[in-house]
Amino acid sequence: MSVTAAAGFRAIGVTAGLKDSGKPDLALVVSDGPDRTGAAVFTSNRVVGAPVKLSRAHIADGVARAIVFNSGGANVCTGERGLADAAATAERAARVLDLDARDVLVASTGLIGEYLPMDRLLKGIDDAAPQLGSTAEAAERAAEAIMTTDTVSKQAHARGEGYTVGGMAKGAGMLAPGMATMLAVITTDAAISPEAAQAALAEAVRTTFNRVDSDGCMSTSDTVVLLASGAAGTRPSAKEFTQTLHSVCADLARALVADAEGASHDIQLTVTGAHSEAAAEAVARTVSRSNLFKTAIFGNDPNWGRILAEVGTVPEEVAAFDPDDLDVTINGIMVCRGGGAHEPRERVDLAAHREVQILIDLGAGGHEATIWTNDLTHDYIHENSAYST
Amino acid sequence: MSVTAAAGFRAIGVTAGLKDSGKPDLALVVSDGPDRTGAAVFTSNRVVGAPVKLSRAHIADGVARAIVFNSGGANVCTGERGLADAAATAERAARVLDLDARDVLVASTGLIGEYLPMDRLLKGIDDAAPQLGSTAEAAERAAEAIMTTDTVSKQAHARGEGYTVGGMAKGAGMLAPGMATMLAVITTDAAISPEAAQAALAEAVRTTFNRVDSDGCMSTSDTVVLLASGAAGTRPSAKEFTQTLHSVCADLARALVADAEGASHDIQLTVTGAHSEAAAEAVARTVSRSNLFKTAIFGNDPNWGRILAEVGTVPEEVAAFDPDDLDVTINGIMVCRGGGAHEPRERVDLAAHREVQILIDLGAGGHEATIWTNDLTHDYIHENSAYST
Repeated sequence: MSVTAAAGFRAIGVTAGLKDSGKPDLALVVSDGPDRTGAAVFTSNRVVGAPVKLSRAHIADGVARAIVFNSGGANVCTGERGLADAAATAERAARVLDLDARDVLVASTGLIGEYLPMDRLLKGIDDAAPQLGSTAEAAERAAEAIMTTDTVSKQAHARGEGYTVGGMAKGAGMLAPGMATMLAVITTDAAISPEAAQAALAEAVRTTFNRVDSDGCMSTSDTVVLLASGAAGTRPSAKEFTQTLHSVCADLARALVADAEGASHDIQLTVTGAHSEAAAEAVARTVSRSNLFKTAIFGNDPNWGRILAEVGTVPEEVAAFDPDDLDVTINGIMVCRGGGAHEPRERVDLAAHREVQILIDLGAGGHEATIWTNDLTHDYIHENSAYST
Repeated sequence: MSVTAAAGFRAIGVTAGLKDSGKPDLALVVSDGPDRTGAAVFTSNRVVGAPVKLSRAHIADGVARAIVFNSGGANVCTGERGLADAAATAERAARVLDLDARDVLVASTGLIGEYLPMDRLLKGIDDAAPQLGSTAEAAERAAEAIMTTDTVSKQAHARGEGYTVGGMAKGAGMLAPGMATMLAVITTDAAISPEAAQAALAEAVRTTFNRVDSDGCMSTSDTVVLLASGAAGTRPSAKEFTQTLHSVCADLARALVADAEGASHDIQLTVTGAHSEAAAEAVARTVSRSNLFKTAIFGNDPNWGRILAEVGTVPEEVAAFDPDDLDVTINGIMVCRGGGAHEPRERVDLAAHREVQILIDLGAGGHEATIWTNDLTHDYIHENSAYST
């Protein structure tokens, strides 16, 4: 159960023939109301695909009824023709679903700089529409159709007080602030205003999807959409709804990390003792992007020196700390205390578990933040050097 | 010929037993004057080793007579004991060379967080001093003794009008702005004031060592020292001296790139059409740090979409450009024009040469900058996951 867990939604995934592999590559998610609330968060990249441009315009009024996903082509750097293709996609879905095209969003993922085979894509929409359903199987087929290098589909749901939130996502590697190459749709049957939906989504994304930083690369296509049908008739408080939404986003974000391309370790990097949450996040993100640190973890080497060297590159105006106050704890062993060696690094066992927990205490305040990242492995090099060839 | 190419300098490298391999690991470079001008540029990392702290203090007066290099241990994150060890190193060199300890600099490279075996290091200084010489062989031995993961020693020299500049450097991988894990000493027999020496060195480093960004990681120990003996009796203009110094620094920086850990391609990333040099540098540096871009080059894949996706992450306040104006040329083939596909990517042959030339035209002004980087390879992962274990 994911996007069909909440009442008032139908979904499906089909093979339109966009992928050479013949695997499912087109998904529809439709909100049957009675509400037609929509909210979205997009990549902060300045180079964005035609689907992001179109969807930004269509969601501006807080209304959305359906979303068309395709894998097998990102429709990015495709100029006027790409924009026309995205518009034609929304129009075809609107026609077969009897909606206004302005209430249809589009999200695409795949290679940049190539045109979509529109004849196959439009025929895929025609094929998909009659198969739409509200079963768990229909949701599973939708979640599979948005996969690219993902090895598993990502689905999650949670129950609030009198309503349900469910969602699906795709993404594996290329995950960075601004949700790189990550597409997700969250559905809920709660009754919620467009403004409340947007505020809740922005807050939930900020501390979940945007705290995943697998390889520091930000995509041109990232999209997270929230559709609210109101079918449950429940009107939750903003705080309670945001918590439920956060829990679904957190589950999906964690699943993205676990499926990052070629990773052998998931790394939870928590920075404490910061003078602000932003400072803690900046330090954690800086460390998460160090190739030397990430290769050390791949080698099961608790190399705290590389962590300190990376922390030291954060400018003073971004994060206050005294280098002689830094503590580093890896999987429960404080290997560095006060900027120098403490417990023997041999006590840290990195090989035993996929998950690695790293705590960096700046000793400069009471705020903290966590970034999830992955190690840098031979499989990452392999997958990403061969992707488009 | 490198550090002994200019008149008034002696050098040597010996095996002090700091490295398990038994290879040379301690070097001395001594200026015999008549001038005793010194200048230096250090890492901008906030976490710095004891040798950087000591050398910063000793060079503050613009006077330096000798520098002690050791590989086999960085003396970083070693607290008060590390500072005392660095001071003892300078004092021992001063005693055997009959100098003031405040005129001796120290530079160390190797693992972080471990104490140096001071008995062996001090005995190494005693052994080295009587062997100091001004031959090319003495300089070669010094250049070899500062190597860590380097596969070749790096030396360069250039002739100015009536004087000579020579230098040696160590570094391979871990090269980033602020000269990560890079040690270098440049010698000249020109007569030059401390202020002029510092200004010339800062300018030369800015556009050479600091434009090398192999893996985005910045070290805690980077040091570039300039010693001027005045033995040639020539007093060059600031402009002419800076040019000669720049040429030696550029040769050494290029040698560092060519020897980066595990790289199969050297990548020259030039950004043109920027509204300022700083904007061009920021865009080039951002692209140079993209693991997706760097793995694509390893795969000989001219994936310009990954370049555009990375350019798009540079904030507007840092670099002005319109995404629809971006051109990308790879090895002479303009694969992207006006933000979209142009010449077929199949025309780009990346496999034929180690060097790759990438031009990104922002179409937003008349400034440019170049960053040198490397591709991201299996060998990089191998070397850096196994380094300390």
